[in-house]
Amino acid sequence: MKRLSILGSTGSIGTQTLEVVKKYPSKFKIVGLTANSNLSLLKKQITQFKPKAVALMDKKSAEELQKVVKIKVYSGLEGLKRIASLRETDTVVNSVVGSIGVVPTMAAISARKNVALANKETLVTAGDIVMKAVKKNKVILMPIDSEHSAIFQCLNGEDIRKVRRIIITASGGPFKNHTKKQMEKVTLKNALKHPTWSMGAKITIDSATLMNKGFEVIEAHHLYDMPYEKIDVVVHPQSIIHSLVEFEDRSVMAQLGNPNMKIPIQYALTYPERLSTDIKILNLSDIGALTFFKPNLELFPCLKYAITAGKIGGTLPAVVNAANEIAVSYFLQNKIKYLDIPRTINKMMKEHKIIKNPTLKQILEVDKRVKEETEVYINNQ
Amino acid sequence: MKRLSILGSTGSIGTQTLEVVKKYPSKFKIVGLTANSNLSLLKKQITQFKPKAVALMDKKSAEELQKVVKIKVYSGLEGLKRIASLRETDTVVNSVVGSIGVVPTMAAISARKNVALANKETLVTAGDIVMKAVKKNKVILMPIDSEHSAIFQCLNGEDIRKVRRIIITASGGPFKNHTKKQMEKVTLKNALKHPTWSMGAKITIDSATLMNKGFEVIEAHHLYDMPYEKIDVVVHPQSIIHSLVEFEDRSVMAQLGNPNMKIPIQYALTYPERLSTDIKILNLSDIGALTFFKPNLELFPCLKYAITAGKIGGTLPAVVNAANEIAVSYFLQNKIKYLDIPRTINKMMKEHKIIKNPTLKQILEVDKRVKEETEVYINNQ
Repeated sequence: MKRLSILGSTGSIGTQTLEVVKKYPSKFKIVGLTANSNLSLLKKQITQFKPKAVALMDKKSAEELQKVVKIKVYSGLEGLKRIASLRETDTVVNSVVGSIGVVPTMAAISARKNVALANKETLVTAGDIVMKAVKKNKVILMPIDSEHSAIFQCLNGEDIRKVRRIIITASGGPFKNHTKKQMEKVTLKNALKHPTWSMGAKITIDSATLMNKGFEVIEAHHLYDMPYEKIDVVVHPQSIIHSLVEFEDRSVMAQLGNPNMKIPIQYALTYPERLSTDIKILNLSDIGALTFFKPNLELFPCLKYAITAGKIGGTLPAVVNAANEIAVSYFLQNKIKYLDIPRTINKMMKEHKIIKNPTLKQILEVDKRVKEETEVYINNQ
Repeated sequence: MKRLSILGSTGSIGTQTLEVVKKYPSKFKIVGLTANSNLSLLKKQITQFKPKAVALMDKKSAEELQKVVKIKVYSGLEGLKRIASLRETDTVVNSVVGSIGVVPTMAAISARKNVALANKETLVTAGDIVMKAVKKNKVILMPIDSEHSAIFQCLNGEDIRKVRRIIITASGGPFKNHTKKQMEKVTLKNALKHPTWSMGAKITIDSATLMNKGFEVIEAHHLYDMPYEKIDVVVHPQSIIHSLVEFEDRSVMAQLGNPNMKIPIQYALTYPERLSTDIKILNLSDIGALTFFKPNLELFPCLKYAITAGKIGGTLPAVVNAANEIAVSYFLQNKIKYLDIPRTINKMMKEHKIIKNPTLKQILEVDKRVKEETEVYINNQ
């Protein structure tokens, strides 16, 4: 039986994780839960899953909750770290959104918990530090993400030293066939219409710009200790092949499925076991065709920026992430245009003085400072 | 180091196997070779690979060869069995063509050799007996065949009990888009033009009729102990995905590559290791699209006949194989029409009195008798 703490239990990944737990009660016990601010849903989850302790980012909500429940309620970032390192927990599901997520990831690893990781920023901003801690503490870091889960599955039973290339697939988002002129006219409404995956607003925009794919390249680099030269991106609009791994013998393994996060979530929690799901069976004849083409780096500069930042390393990936987070939030408020997103990121990258081999503290400082600077930059335009 | 006997060393699979051996001299030693009748090529192979013993099916050729070489030259089916069970051999590559291939396969297994199997008839005609012997003698049976090698690779590191479905891909051959009317006008020349694989004449016709795919379903049933209900066939004209395995969690693993027998040959010999090959790298963007559709069992009755025979079992698969072998040979001589192939097979199936749980001897007798009866039937039309 796995004893789980779920960070971000009221979000999309969190609630889907709890559905898996509910389906296999003999396999899982919920020890801890955390939410950002969704007090009513967290209350329901407490009643249903009976955790030992919970945390809310918002202090007032935490105090309010403490009045009505008998279990311990922590708050803030400290609360997140507490739930990530509860003695009774063996596996932490980190589905916190944003760069703050790296802190509980590190807390969990230091406390020798295995981590099922949905928080992208953890590896994008602090991949070197996190993977070093994973090795030192001998814990398992499982990706909750269709692409990295696919790669993990392709590597099952294989010798990673025999990998020639990792090929990450990208749906290409809603603008995959756009011309440069059309890109200039992209509206928020267009950008929020993802063709294959239903996700939160921030990640939907990151999928439209391919920034998301750039981050996944950085994550793959860290997760599988793979040089950037061995990681390719191919646009595959149907999102059926979730990624591929090419081996020395030119044999290529791929993982496929209808787009549904349940598979990577459950796999991360039950690996090496595979348990039944109720996801729609993949029917290739019904789909008819799987198509592929090269991403256009000129039309999708965010992909290029992320990979460049990954290659250069140091604090630069944290800069790209911070600038992107702010730019996207302004775009979501309709305060800047679509093409202002890459423009802003490029500007912040150019202005940043890279720190080589930064500490976690330095990364978090850069994250904070660049976010502030990005706001200033945007507001002065 | 693996010590190999290659049965059928002068054929397509045999020569490609020797290329692998040549590329990795520290990994392999050739102990035995056999050929049907290609004396000149076998002589060259003896000089190059220095086996301990060889065999030729043709007795006269064997006597001729014995005069000029110092190593032992065996002949006939007994010779094949000898080479399959040489004391110094640990792995037998069986690339013999035709139903005779089952005899050396059984000889190798009984002598506790691992077998890399390219001979289709072994499992099609005597799958139950062969797999029982494999278990009893605790040897490994590795498929040399792009589809079954793909399935094997998809099962790497997985629990076979969690397989929901095996999906075998078929190129569909040259007539995949034909109408019923067009099928009636198919000529030998059309049938010999395979769109993706370059193979011998017999197997090219079997690919055109999809009989080949039916045989692969039977082989998969035996190799992976999979009920027929869990084996699907999907037409995939590009022959890039070589087969897929769907698991309980609805995750589907696939093995891909440019169509080239070197991958399955080398993998069968080096598993679990993957060694470099010089095969063209798979480039999905260049390929552009992978397409899929359901096979039409009305237009490709051979596929239906093979699967039906597999499901019913006993001596019926041997009947289908024997009738098909004769019908195809007559078609290759332009003595019967394309649609006479399924017609003949159907006739022989209907006339056969099935023996349940046959012995190998009974299967070989049925094979011989049905071939004779098929010739008589065709010649009386």
